[in-house]
Amino acid sequence: MIAHVDDVERIRRGVVNALPTDLSQLLPPPELMPASAAVRAELKRFLGLLTDYPSRAGKGIRGRLLLLSAEAHGAQAGSSGAEAAQTLAEALELFQNWVLVHDDIEDDSEERRGQPALHHLTGMPVALNVGDAMHVAMWQHLQRLPTGTAVQRAEALQEFGKMIMHTAAGQHLDLAWVNARRFDVTEADYLAMVSLKTAYYTVVAPLRLGAWAAGVTPSPHLEEAGIDLGVAFQIRDDVLNLTAGTELGKEFAGDLYEGKRTLMLAHLLEHAPERDRQRAVTLLDRPRRAKRPEEMDEVLALMQTHGSVDYAQGVAEQRLERGLATLQAALTPLPGRAAVERMLALVGELAARPS
Amino acid sequence: MIAHVDDVERIRRGVVNALPTDLSQLLPPPELMPASAAVRAELKRFLGLLTDYPSRAGKGIRGRLLLLSAEAHGAQAGSSGAEAAQTLAEALELFQNWVLVHDDIEDDSEERRGQPALHHLTGMPVALNVGDAMHVAMWQHLQRLPTGTAVQRAEALQEFGKMIMHTAAGQHLDLAWVNARRFDVTEADYLAMVSLKTAYYTVVAPLRLGAWAAGVTPSPHLEEAGIDLGVAFQIRDDVLNLTAGTELGKEFAGDLYEGKRTLMLAHLLEHAPERDRQRAVTLLDRPRRAKRPEEMDEVLALMQTHGSVDYAQGVAEQRLERGLATLQAALTPLPGRAAVERMLALVGELAARPS
Repeated sequence: MIAHVDDVERIRRGVVNALPTDLSQLLPPPELMPASAAVRAELKRFLGLLTDYPSRAGKGIRGRLLLLSAEAHGAQAGSSGAEAAQTLAEALELFQNWVLVHDDIEDDSEERRGQPALHHLTGMPVALNVGDAMHVAMWQHLQRLPTGTAVQRAEALQEFGKMIMHTAAGQHLDLAWVNARRFDVTEADYLAMVSLKTAYYTVVAPLRLGAWAAGVTPSPHLEEAGIDLGVAFQIRDDVLNLTAGTELGKEFAGDLYEGKRTLMLAHLLEHAPERDRQRAVTLLDRPRRAKRPEEMDEVLALMQTHGSVDYAQGVAEQRLERGLATLQAALTPLPGRAAVERMLALVGELAARPS
Repeated sequence: MIAHVDDVERIRRGVVNALPTDLSQLLPPPELMPASAAVRAELKRFLGLLTDYPSRAGKGIRGRLLLLSAEAHGAQAGSSGAEAAQTLAEALELFQNWVLVHDDIEDDSEERRGQPALHHLTGMPVALNVGDAMHVAMWQHLQRLPTGTAVQRAEALQEFGKMIMHTAAGQHLDLAWVNARRFDVTEADYLAMVSLKTAYYTVVAPLRLGAWAAGVTPSPHLEEAGIDLGVAFQIRDDVLNLTAGTELGKEFAGDLYEGKRTLMLAHLLEHAPERDRQRAVTLLDRPRRAKRPEEMDEVLALMQTHGSVDYAQGVAEQRLERGLATLQAALTPLPGRAAVERMLALVGELAARPS
């Protein structure tokens, strides 16, 4: 485990500071619009809700990766490139936070980072609106990127927009398949979905944004490597969801309750005999609240019996290996040798088989 | 009725064109991520959903007001200022559209512009994500604002962020009061809520963004006037919700079903005798689906009996008159005389008493 607590903590503070902290950032001047004590108290609560998810402990992987990429691409400590990388890392983690607020609503998740999901604390409408305000704050923060330097500011902003659009497209596939109760999602469909939904904002964009911050055009191989590594990361996350306890602050087997399409599920439905296949679909194709723990255990047992979990682990390892090789080749010519080594260790760690 | 069909239609087309129209804008290059026919078909559906609300006929008031403000502030046809105003007008209408997608979820509205609300067509999760993608597209569109000219680009972008943050703060008050089942919302609280929720994006921001587009620092009186006019507009909209038929493409008395705090309600609860007050609260303080039409008619009758509707109309007229006077004074020194006249007519029309 590589500890960059300082980086993580500095990014986390930057995210909280990127959000409005004072009522004057929400309200017009008092001579134009008086605000009663009741209004002010409710808006103070709103300010608190904006920082709820960012204040919960996260690993800050994406922000760390972005900072390392900037350093690897030659951004020196104290330069405008390093400053741009810091702002981009904060905006990226803020992105992750508002997306989680909305994801938790979309999936009706119970918990996030060991505490109740925001919409369970506030009701869905308030939480949805909180996510929107966090989204705006992210773009406001991006406007503070330094200008007039070597930083490729316009390219970094475009990268951000493209990253979010890919993520939304992947999220659409995920949600639309659940909504349509489609159980014929193939392995290729799953891989396309997670490439879009996870790989861009988790690996591709951090790698590329670090390059733009340093004023360097990213190697096209970063996108190729980032897709492989992001897919490996998501598969590992899906496997952990089914096999780990609740110590990670997520529900056990939440994906089964939420009816998520995973590689394990695609494998099971493609390879199990008809009887087991039918049984799995029957158990999964119910509203969340009609699903019982022993039934979800039964689905998991079917996945283990038919080798679906091992199969998914294998695919993750292949993608990790290929992605690391591509990344290593792409990073070799870069000036920041120490940062390159730390990046390779970090991505290896994040997408590795759970120990 | 002032007809600027060409402007409205040009803005509407600009909004649709600001959204991704091609799968290549959602997908990585095929050599990096193959997409099956099923994935491509589902993402084509996603592209269609992004343009659903923008394709429904809207009045385009905010975009028209912004274009007129730019012209009044001296942006000549064909100049970079006029080009910036057009981009800002499209982004503003796109803002309105994604906010409506999310608002309709938050309020569980039935209809929008005469058709079912998006989440009733797609399910809530898919619609929420569609709204997020539209939000991103809005910021992507704003990045296309012309640079290196007289246009105050950075100021316009800041104005956009501030406008959305005000809107979200007002929306928070609205939603939090409904969620907390608070019936002690005063007239002052209501006025603060709608100043934030409606006045900024409907009047203040269009007026000020037009100035920035023309490269002019807006008069501080535009904010003052815009709050008055925006409040008048929202009160009129609330009154219409209770008194008009369904020809506007909105539900009749939807605000009562949704439990919205309005000026009529604040007046009724402040001025009705205890018995009527209790009765109104009892009828309104129920989940939407437990409310019967004859009960909502009863609440409306109470509002009429106690003069709450007339009172609200009166407040709207006062704010309209004061806002128009302030606006007229602020606009008098501006170069674009013809545009000033058309602006005054347009805001007068939008906030006037329904005929």
